[in-house]
Amino acid sequence: MADARAQRLLPEAPAIVVEGWVIGHAADGDSFQLFDGRHELEIEYSGAAGCARSDIKIGAVLRVEASQSDRAILARNIELLAAAAAPRFDAAVPDDGPDSPRSRYRYLEFRNPAFQQVFRLRHRIWLEISNLLDARGYLHVETPLLATQSETGANEFVVTSTRDAHLRYALPQSPQLFGHLLAIGGVTRYFQWSRCFRDEDSRANRQPEFTQLHVEAAFSDEAALIQLGEEIVRRCFELAGLDGGAAFEQLSFHEAQRRFGTDKPDLRIACGFTQLPCILVEPGRESQLFVCELPPGLDFTNEEIGQIGNLVARRRMQVTGYVGPEAQRHARFPMRVNADELAAALRAANTYVPGSSLLIAGEWAAHGKLSRDLYKWLIERPQRPPGYRPVWIREFPLFEEDAAQKGRLKAFSHPFTAPQDPAALAEAKRNHELLALKGRAFDLVLNGEEIGSGSMLIGDPDLLHEIFARMSLSKKEVRAMFGVVMDALACGAPPIGGFGLGIDRLLALMTGKDRIRDVIAFPKSRNGICPVFQKR
Amino acid sequence: MADARAQRLLPEAPAIVVEGWVIGHAADGDSFQLFDGRHELEIEYSGAAGCARSDIKIGAVLRVEASQSDRAILARNIELLAAAAAPRFDAAVPDDGPDSPRSRYRYLEFRNPAFQQVFRLRHRIWLEISNLLDARGYLHVETPLLATQSETGANEFVVTSTRDAHLRYALPQSPQLFGHLLAIGGVTRYFQWSRCFRDEDSRANRQPEFTQLHVEAAFSDEAALIQLGEEIVRRCFELAGLDGGAAFEQLSFHEAQRRFGTDKPDLRIACGFTQLPCILVEPGRESQLFVCELPPGLDFTNEEIGQIGNLVARRRMQVTGYVGPEAQRHARFPMRVNADELAAALRAANTYVPGSSLLIAGEWAAHGKLSRDLYKWLIERPQRPPGYRPVWIREFPLFEEDAAQKGRLKAFSHPFTAPQDPAALAEAKRNHELLALKGRAFDLVLNGEEIGSGSMLIGDPDLLHEIFARMSLSKKEVRAMFGVVMDALACGAPPIGGFGLGIDRLLALMTGKDRIRDVIAFPKSRNGICPVFQKR
Repeated sequence: MADARAQRLLPEAPAIVVEGWVIGHAADGDSFQLFDGRHELEIEYSGAAGCARSDIKIGAVLRVEASQSDRAILARNIELLAAAAAPRFDAAVPDDGPDSPRSRYRYLEFRNPAFQQVFRLRHRIWLEISNLLDARGYLHVETPLLATQSETGANEFVVTSTRDAHLRYALPQSPQLFGHLLAIGGVTRYFQWSRCFRDEDSRANRQPEFTQLHVEAAFSDEAALIQLGEEIVRRCFELAGLDGGAAFEQLSFHEAQRRFGTDKPDLRIACGFTQLPCILVEPGRESQLFVCELPPGLDFTNEEIGQIGNLVARRRMQVTGYVGPEAQRHARFPMRVNADELAAALRAANTYVPGSSLLIAGEWAAHGKLSRDLYKWLIERPQRPPGYRPVWIREFPLFEEDAAQKGRLKAFSHPFTAPQDPAALAEAKRNHELLALKGRAFDLVLNGEEIGSGSMLIGDPDLLHEIFARMSLSKKEVRAMFGVVMDALACGAPPIGGFGLGIDRLLALMTGKDRIRDVIAFPKSRNGICPVFQKR
Repeated sequence: MADARAQRLLPEAPAIVVEGWVIGHAADGDSFQLFDGRHELEIEYSGAAGCARSDIKIGAVLRVEASQSDRAILARNIELLAAAAAPRFDAAVPDDGPDSPRSRYRYLEFRNPAFQQVFRLRHRIWLEISNLLDARGYLHVETPLLATQSETGANEFVVTSTRDAHLRYALPQSPQLFGHLLAIGGVTRYFQWSRCFRDEDSRANRQPEFTQLHVEAAFSDEAALIQLGEEIVRRCFELAGLDGGAAFEQLSFHEAQRRFGTDKPDLRIACGFTQLPCILVEPGRESQLFVCELPPGLDFTNEEIGQIGNLVARRRMQVTGYVGPEAQRHARFPMRVNADELAAALRAANTYVPGSSLLIAGEWAAHGKLSRDLYKWLIERPQRPPGYRPVWIREFPLFEEDAAQKGRLKAFSHPFTAPQDPAALAEAKRNHELLALKGRAFDLVLNGEEIGSGSMLIGDPDLLHEIFARMSLSKKEVRAMFGVVMDALACGAPPIGGFGLGIDRLLALMTGKDRIRDVIAFPKSRNGICPVFQKR
């Protein structure tokens, strides 16, 4: 051993200098881990000159002259650049309480290579997507953060000047309005990584400031924007080393509501339904037969299998068989159909991919309700299959009822959303007709979370006036609320559309974090306060 | 002519589709200019099908199917995508008054290719410098804009929540503090394009929000940071197609003050002084002789030449000759020395580059005062030589007298600035000794404007305490004001330094704009209000 070490220290071994923080010690005391800002380096230091061994504490800043062998970095001389009295807390200490030492010393987390990896990915995405958009002719333009307060002022932080009492701004919830003006004004392709602000009740997964990638394009349409959005998200997945951007699905808002009871479905737990071309004949009744394919990759206890049976029964259907892995089949659901007939039916259905599936007898028309029931039950369970299932939700309603004022309509997304069929808008008179109209808005939903939202903009001021009229807004009210946009549209608006991508949420999903605070360098605590700088 | 046109319209001519806004008409009415978001296209349209000629108005949005010849784009069919009633204002209309139509319709300026060119450069710099920093291992990290109010709160905008009266933030004047924490915490190379905010009296060339490129590096030093800063600014010049980043000079704060009476000198109007190894002997007295080289590229009237003579005389010197272009020489200053002797002296001086120079007789020791006088006189003249003269100002004082409290010292830059000589700090007792100490701060000045500012950070908490003691701050006051940084430094701080570059100012200088509002998409008016959204 002594020989081997002497050999490794021969002058011909390559000499290197590494600088960083001590982040760990080997149990034998002959080596320590140094973090150089990027890598965790294992450094052997028995026999090294320089600072005292007692100085090599967690948090100490060292400059190490070393030789590097295949196996290890062997310190020759160690200089103590800064002594450390860093607080030590193990990973079990929570990091989101304002009084937690981990949240007070948030910045020290960056000495953890795994923690920093998330921010390296964030950087890489920021840069590569910027390059991608540049290559597509998009221009990065910075828009104001000191914005004008909106008419309602809802959820807006207010900025005041201590110098001039008359000066008031609002921090924008989105740069969308500026993006529209830029597109009308001549910037045909614009993007921005913009800080957005929302003054709203704290929830587990919200922050008062967050980052959006915002894109706006003139002479564009939904298909082109959706394609660009997919390209961006697919590139993010690639950069994260994930296989997840392969298949983006599309669902209409109506279809999403029918199948899942939500417009933010997690397709990983979606059940597939296939009607079989056969009837189950039992004494006294006949039922339609269909297959309900349970999400792959989930494990159910016998008790849960029973709960599923109850959900089915509640919709006046019955589970008549279980088609799945051999081991589970008969133990759980008894087969109550002729196996040969079933096999023939499954072959005939053709679209059905065998997996863990229930064979259900009942009324096919009610399968939408069962789909929603099962989704609702599955979403409450913590277990999720691995992987990523992005889906665009399209054809949102143009209007919805204003909860605050019965009988009155308001915009479902925002009032500038272009209607899918302007002629139908002109013809629609009654609220139920108007509520059936679709708008050219689209959301990107990933594993049950909305990570993006976009729309095509109304370019015609007359059409916009028609929309406002259906919302029972007077010209005066429209002028007060949307005068700037109305004026801009009158200056010649090409077809314009855009979207915003929630970067924090996308990153949290891709890195397996439950909370967006884990992908934000200096997040706020739940009470909205920065735990690093809070007065103590 | 008819033949030639028919030929150009033959099917084999390449067919193109262009979309954009009409931005001009030819006098003959046979062609118009279309802006497609990037280029100004000249389109001939006699004989084109589609929309009425009367629809082709300034601001109209068109889709043009055309064939392209070598000489022109020949419209075959023109579709009117949006009619326009765009306000028209000529370039003479001012754009900075809140009621000016040009400032109300700020976004329409982007249909002017020359205007948009500035923002394309801004985009290009943003992206290329990001790629450059990425290649050097720098990580882009976003730091909070909802920051904690500082102890003094000076020049800070205050953010309040309408939902929670206890919640208060300040918008940061710089992300520097977060950069320090990141560098201490393990992000050894960090950068950010950060929005900065200053609530201060409006001046011609200030905006309440502006953009800084902020860089912070651990295990670094001034030389490396200055080199990186130069590389960045040089690349910006390249991207702007300017020859300006060639020679960065360096001056100490003291030298800048001595020669120019300012630490933000415009070196384009700096006068060079060279002592000659000869004496002017006149009846009754002897004077030292030296050359004052006037800035190249400036033209002076005879009246101004007289004013220069007066400035020289006021310092008890006299202009004894003028060495410059033949035409100007004798007309203005009579030669009062022997021409042969002078020629020999000039040859001997060697360092002197012939130009428009004054030969001055007087006391050499007073040339610093004359230098300041001439600089002060020259800076008041509007004329500037072309080109760019970047200069780093270094060795700023560590302390200055606190104007608010006589006899008390405060930090010249910021209190975390590392002293050049910690031992000298320990020895210095009296104020005049302390005031002579230098700090490791550096500014980048371009043509008389500060475009960057940086410093090395004190890494040793004890040294920082010593600084605070010299500023007569109690431990309690230090704790209240700088507790977070003190705690962070105790966690192991490597040598850390960084700088901020004012991107708006740099861009304005490079594009020849007098005001930073000309390089900001939606600037505020002088009263701090956004003219686009101001309530009307």
